[in-house]
Amino acid sequence: MDEIKYRPIGVIHSPFKEPKGTPIQPAAAKGIRGTVEICPEYAKGLKDIDGFSHLILIYHFHLSRGASLEAKPYMDNEVRGIFAMRGPSRPNPIGLSVVRLIKRERLTLHIQDVDIVDGTPLLDIKPYVPEFDMREVVKIGWLEKRVHKLPAAKDDGRFTRHKAK
Amino acid sequence: MDEIKYRPIGVIHSPFKEPKGTPIQPAAAKGIRGTVEICPEYAKGLKDIDGFSHLILIYHFHLSRGASLEAKPYMDNEVRGIFAMRGPSRPNPIGLSVVRLIKRERLTLHIQDVDIVDGTPLLDIKPYVPEFDMREVVKIGWLEKRVHKLPAAKDDGRFTRHKAK
Repeated sequence: MDEIKYRPIGVIHSPFKEPKGTPIQPAAAKGIRGTVEICPEYAKGLKDIDGFSHLILIYHFHLSRGASLEAKPYMDNEVRGIFAMRGPSRPNPIGLSVVRLIKRERLTLHIQDVDIVDGTPLLDIKPYVPEFDMREVVKIGWLEKRVHKLPAAKDDGRFTRHKAK
Repeated sequence: MDEIKYRPIGVIHSPFKEPKGTPIQPAAAKGIRGTVEICPEYAKGLKDIDGFSHLILIYHFHLSRGASLEAKPYMDNEVRGIFAMRGPSRPNPIGLSVVRLIKRERLTLHIQDVDIVDGTPLLDIKPYVPEFDMREVVKIGWLEKRVHKLPAAKDDGRFTRHKAK
């Protein structure tokens, strides 16, 4: 199949001005506030969104410096397949975070638990629904012994185009 | 920002040959089996994936007949904003499903709880991790009174390019 083309529907704003130091998952970003600014032409699509306490944001990792099929995740010392981890250096650099919706003000969504770099282009918003999105999970692979490190885990800049100063 | 271009990394196969009749969420597709065929050039990215019992599939709704900012969801009688529902007629027609991974055989992932139309182009795979993806949800908006209808809910073809015969 040919190329698939998308266009940002808005921009995500957060206190994280560069990848280095950004929490690597919303669970590690507890309490951090940010906003989503939706482009005016998509305003109608936001109807009813404030009924949901949590949203799935799907966005473009715009600072990803290109795909690696294998990489060393932040929380591990071994090289893992990219589809077995969540980092940004993916063949299609699509990011996904579940955030809390605090309130909507016209084109602005005030969100919490934000692990996303300021200026990230937003591709889609979906309502988070436990019946669709929660599962009784049996195995979490290599993360089993690592996931307890999460609250302290921050991006060290390894996957991004611009080296930290 | 300009157009964002992605390329499919594989194809999803399922028993659902057209949108009509396809369950509308994995929760409604319990037990349904399918496969993901990954393009050979991405094989290395699958390393370690079989350690995870559940995967997030991100895919392109290739049969979506274009964006509507408001639509009547399958489970409701009122028009809702597209970002407050999960249907395919989105500005960027990106789909997301959590599926169970049964086993991997080289480039083939055998999956279960599949609510995806056969032939759907796959964009990304992420491991499903409760610490990242599960939330204590407070509100699910208009779905509150509707979500109990889910196990029976199937696509009636309203969002797709080709009308059912």
